Amino acid sequence: MSVSAFDHPVLAGLVGDDAVASHFTVEAEIEAMLAFELALARAEEEAGLVPAGTTQALEQTCEGFQPDLEALRSATARDGVCVPELVRQLRRAAGDPHAPNIHFGATSQDVVDTALVLRLKPVLADFGVRLDTQAQAFEALDARFGERRLMAQTRMQRALPIRCTDRIAAWRRPLQTLADDLPALEERVLCLQFGGAVGTLDRLADKGPAVAAKLAAALELRNAGCWHTDRTPLAELAGWLARLTGVLGKFGQDVALMAQNEVATIRLAGGGGSSAMPHKQNPVAAEVLVTLARFNATQIAGMHQALVHENARSGAAWTLEWMLLPQITVAAAAALSTATRLVADIDAMGEDD
Amino acid sequence: MSVSAFDHPVLAGLVGDDAVASHFTVEAEIEAMLAFELALARAEEEAGLVPAGTTQALEQTCEGFQPDLEALRSATARDGVCVPELVRQLRRAAGDPHAPNIHFGATSQDVVDTALVLRLKPVLADFGVRLDTQAQAFEALDARFGERRLMAQTRMQRALPIRCTDRIAAWRRPLQTLADDLPALEERVLCLQFGGAVGTLDRLADKGPAVAAKLAAALELRNAGCWHTDRTPLAELAGWLARLTGVLGKFGQDVALMAQNEVATIRLAGGGGSSAMPHKQNPVAAEVLVTLARFNATQIAGMHQALVHENARSGAAWTLEWMLLPQITVAAAAALSTATRLVADIDAMGEDD
Amino acid sequence: MSVSAFDHPVLAGLVGDDAVASHFTVEAEIEAMLAFELALARAEEEAGLVPAGTTQALEQTCEGFQPDLEALRSATARDGVCVPELVRQLRRAAGDPHAPNIHFGATSQDVVDTALVLRLKPVLADFGVRLDTQAQAFEALDARFGERRLMAQTRMQRALPIRCTDRIAAWRRPLQTLADDLPALEERVLCLQFGGAVGTLDRLADKGPAVAAKLAAALELRNAGCWHTDRTPLAELAGWLARLTGVLGKFGQDVALMAQNEVATIRLAGGGGSSAMPHKQNPVAAEVLVTLARFNATQIAGMHQALVHENARSGAAWTLEWMLLPQITVAAAAALSTATRLVADIDAMGEDD
Amino acid sequence: MSVSAFDHPVLAGLVGDDAVASHFTVEAEIEAMLAFELALARAEEEAGLVPAGTTQALEQTCEGFQPDLEALRSATARDGVCVPELVRQLRRAAGDPHAPNIHFGATSQDVVDTALVLRLKPVLADFGVRLDTQAQAFEALDARFGERRLMAQTRMQRALPIRCTDRIAAWRRPLQTLADDLPALEERVLCLQFGGAVGTLDRLADKGPAVAAKLAAALELRNAGCWHTDRTPLAELAGWLARLTGVLGKFGQDVALMAQNEVATIRLAGGGGSSAMPHKQNPVAAEVLVTLARFNATQIAGMHQALVHENARSGAAWTLEWMLLPQITVAAAAALSTATRLVADIDAMGEDD
Repeated sequence: MSVSAFDHPVLAGLVGDDAVASHFTVEAEIEAMLAFELALARAEEEAGLVPAGTTQALEQTCEGFQPDLEALRSATARDGVCVPELVRQLRRAAGDPHAPNIHFGATSQDVVDTALVLRLKPVLADFGVRLDTQAQAFEALDARFGERRLMAQTRMQRALPIRCTDRIAAWRRPLQTLADDLPALEERVLCLQFGGAVGTLDRLADKGPAVAAKLAAALELRNAGCWHTDRTPLAELAGWLARLTGVLGKFGQDVALMAQNEVATIRLAGGGGSSAMPHKQNPVAAEVLVTLARFNATQIAGMHQALVHENARSGAAWTLEWMLLPQITVAAAAALSTATRLVADIDAMGEDD
Repeated sequence: MSVSAFDHPVLAGLVGDDAVASHFTVEAEIEAMLAFELALARAEEEAGLVPAGTTQALEQTCEGFQPDLEALRSATARDGVCVPELVRQLRRAAGDPHAPNIHFGATSQDVVDTALVLRLKPVLADFGVRLDTQAQAFEALDARFGERRLMAQTRMQRALPIRCTDRIAAWRRPLQTLADDLPALEERVLCLQFGGAVGTLDRLADKGPAVAAKLAAALELRNAGCWHTDRTPLAELAGWLARLTGVLGKFGQDVALMAQNEVATIRLAGGGGSSAMPHKQNPVAAEVLVTLARFNATQIAGMHQALVHENARSGAAWTLEWMLLPQITVAAAAALSTATRLVADIDAMGEDD
Repeated sequence: MSVSAFDHPVLAGLVGDDAVASHFTVEAEIEAMLAFELALARAEEEAGLVPAGTTQALEQTCEGFQPDLEALRSATARDGVCVPELVRQLRRAAGDPHAPNIHFGATSQDVVDTALVLRLKPVLADFGVRLDTQAQAFEALDARFGERRLMAQTRMQRALPIRCTDRIAAWRRPLQTLADDLPALEERVLCLQFGGAVGTLDRLADKGPAVAAKLAAALELRNAGCWHTDRTPLAELAGWLARLTGVLGKFGQDVALMAQNEVATIRLAGGGGSSAMPHKQNPVAAEVLVTLARFNATQIAGMHQALVHENARSGAAWTLEWMLLPQITVAAAAALSTATRLVADIDAMGEDD
Repeated sequence: MSVSAFDHPVLAGLVGDDAVASHFTVEAEIEAMLAFELALARAEEEAGLVPAGTTQALEQTCEGFQPDLEALRSATARDGVCVPELVRQLRRAAGDPHAPNIHFGATSQDVVDTALVLRLKPVLADFGVRLDTQAQAFEALDARFGERRLMAQTRMQRALPIRCTDRIAAWRRPLQTLADDLPALEERVLCLQFGGAVGTLDRLADKGPAVAAKLAAALELRNAGCWHTDRTPLAELAGWLARLTGVLGKFGQDVALMAQNEVATIRLAGGGGSSAMPHKQNPVAAEVLVTLARFNATQIAGMHQALVHENARSGAAWTLEWMLLPQITVAAAAALSTATRLVADIDAMGEDD
């Protein structure tokens, strides 16, 4: 299916981002879930909570494990989450006597949330790299055109002349802030989720904290306590992504306005063609940046609705996150790569004095 | 890729709807685009705008036509829309002398918008059928439990007893309204889009109206004039779909509250299992209805942002619709089928006097 | 206080609309509430549910009734709704033996929802008048400039020339649809709400339907049954208002783009001044139309969240409507009056051939 | 007028917050604007940009200055911003020769944005105090009931017992994070805006940086450069406020569910009364927390739409902020004070073992 433009074989070329999207495939998700289960088994075996040999057995089970996706799909329709069936498949594959020792003391949310975070880790690292690339692209643009004259517009009317470097600085400033904020965001978001059935690690008794610490260390995540009903880190992440997409939307809107034939303070190479008017050069990348900004500005509302996560686990609010966060992330990634291409397409900016 | 839950092999079982999603595949879209181009050629041939034989040649071209999806993808990244490349592929396949007569006088938006509407037609018909099914399900539920006593809650507190039939009537009432409104919605939405490069059918000169009329008749769409920048019909559609999802969310929220162990005014069969607590019966379908309602309530904002469709065509606003409307539609369809399943799962409701 | 721009003594001049806002004052609201209570007393007296003389006593009580707003405020903070305290004040003012016969069989929601609808009635009538005015303004604009040449832009680039009449037609088309839809919207929205404590008029026994019919007739509202948990009419209303604001936002965005100094296909009289650049003529009204469109596109999401109105009355969802709908309505009204002013400010459009 | 519930004499008791709202009155705004103009005159006088005596003259002008609000209102309708008229009034009041030296080199945005930030400063300080109060309230609640047993619910079904302290910890955790983040947020948001007509302080020539530094110091704001088109600090602020409101919404939703008669794991004092059912105790404060959470989750989308702030100043996007941010701020403040009251109303929680 290709209900979403990000998953559409044609439209994903326009608004998608395969590199970041690859972390949201079912294969990547299950791989991260298995990584959680394995690290859990190891930590629990070391703590003496499950018998020696459990980890080795699970390792062998995971090697070449082929989940039955059809069964996962129908079980998820029933259970609301794929973990009970995935654990069932793993336990069946591991066989006796290991089966009951797999996923010991954990709950679906531990697996789903931690598997999300494990994949967000390389995604956020990738954003860091791309922000650098974008900063360098703007720097190079500044080196080429910074000293040229540009008529500033305020309220859609000519105001006073500035230098291109002033405008480029306005584009760079919020991106720099976002880059500066990335480490703190990573610290906030990249945290182990491990709470067991109701967030208290009840089945681990007094060994809960030690197992959590080992598990976090093994997965290279922060051990910041159970956050099962505190979804603010994900709202913060979504906010950062939406701000990123928003500031790139401002850049796109500026370029689309500057590239108007009558204004022509930017000249673009490689604009899009029209099926009816071969003479046109459409600023497609600039428009797409506006689209992606407005898309993520729309989605961010849903992530905040999902903060009302009732009781010790809200199926309704949690599922809503699954429908929104991957798209928000990919939209932001697509905006960054589109922006980098757009800068490269700027053939001229401003005018000589 | 499976960035969206609707396209995710596992999650689509929970929140997706394959029947309606199938209308949003690239294959379905291209099939509808070819239907537009063929009907256009026929209408223009009859009007003497393109040479005799154009239609026949295009028919042969379309038979077994295999679009080069990779080329469509990269061209869409450049052009912002797949039509220029699709027309190029069609023209190349048709060869001389037919090539220039294909897509004559039309523009990308004519193809994309009409191809959307052509697919919305069976989708809306399907919604009509499902609304009937849902109404019958509620009627049957009423027949079984309507006369039983139910404690009404207002502001989350026990109020006074009603009958189950009162509650079921509250669930049915807005669905009936939505069903009643469907024919008018279909009339509003299922309209040919045909305007040429800038909405004036400039290349068709005085034959524009006649060709539009024939084209609409052939495609069994209403001929209501060029609506290229008037996106209100799509906002209306999105509103109808979001209201539908919203009222089913109310039904889901009610069921989730009624199925609480302590309240137990509804007993559900087949609730979802937990990986940590085998004793639980989770009201997963009820929760999903709330999720889908809040999802569509989120998306509807973006469809209204897209009404600000500047000039004679906004690439930015138009692309935003593509990212939202298919998901809104599938979410509403999933809500309807989930609701029907949920009614079937109600084993008991209310209590004897 | 002036937390909202609509209530701000200065900003309301820019984005507000006093005529429509006047229906949302506490005075207007209480007047409508008293109208409900009076009509209820009369209908119940005729039905023999309350003693003869109740209506007359209440009429005398309402004459010159000065609600204690401080008490209403603190009671609302406690009760979530002002009706219990308002009824208490009315009963105290009416005194024995009439007190218990006031508000007989009704509940807060009956009063609040019907009082809302009573005020929406003149508001919607006003929208009808303004839509006519706007249509005439566009017609006059068309008469002045329709035949002039205008370069159409698609995707922010020059496309092909059209006539000003084509663009004006694109502005008018959705407004005509909205005007055409107004009667059906009025029929949908302007309905009595009367259900008693839990929607069943339990205290009125078999006289409920007759009283409801009389009450609706007296208030000149439709009697369409209790809609206490079916908030779709209000979502429809909000959708209509947001579409209206959206299409006016498209008009504003077009004007702002056309009025750019370099494009200059529209010349505006009376643009806004700048504190730093006296030479500027800012297209303030055009910008405000975009602002209002994006404001209402934002708010519409909340109205759809409020459809998840759990049980027989959701305090949470209901209160959310109160925070959104008045603002959506005033924003749409402000957009209409701003648009009418903006058309009047168009000094020139297009160019001679 | 009282279009918004925050400005409604009765409803503000339920969802408003007078203390924070007082910073959004026109009086508070103009006072902050005058503070900016005065500090500007002083800094420019020290830098030799305006004649000696300007500051003293302006000080005398500001003492007892009574702005003509009617003129401000109609000028704002024309100019889109109140500053040109306010400066005109100030200049007229100051008279010759001082008039032209007032507001020298500044632009409307400098005044509006800095005046906003000046008022956000005490507002954010107030949030810090209230977060402390709320933390203490939860601590006291924990001391009273923490050790009692509470049945945890997941997916709306009984799961396993926890202690009340576990639930209270879940409520406190995100509030603690928000409190921890407040200093960094203050540093991000509480920055002088000073850029002149197009962000380059063109009229101040080489003295721009020195004047900016003095101005910031005098106003006790950070001097972080001109941020006129970088609206991300305000989006961050809105995100923080919406997260705060969201986590309090989770607390409210929990309490409303726990206070259900059938569940009764929380007992509230002082619930709201009903006009139809005197026996009821409605958990009004808990519901209002949910309302406010969903309200701010709605508004946050608009703040992100406003990031697409085109060119050197977008009238459209900027005005949108004015319509949203004050309401978001007051809603968050109201949520905090409501939450504190709600904790105080908890008479009992959980059960003895």
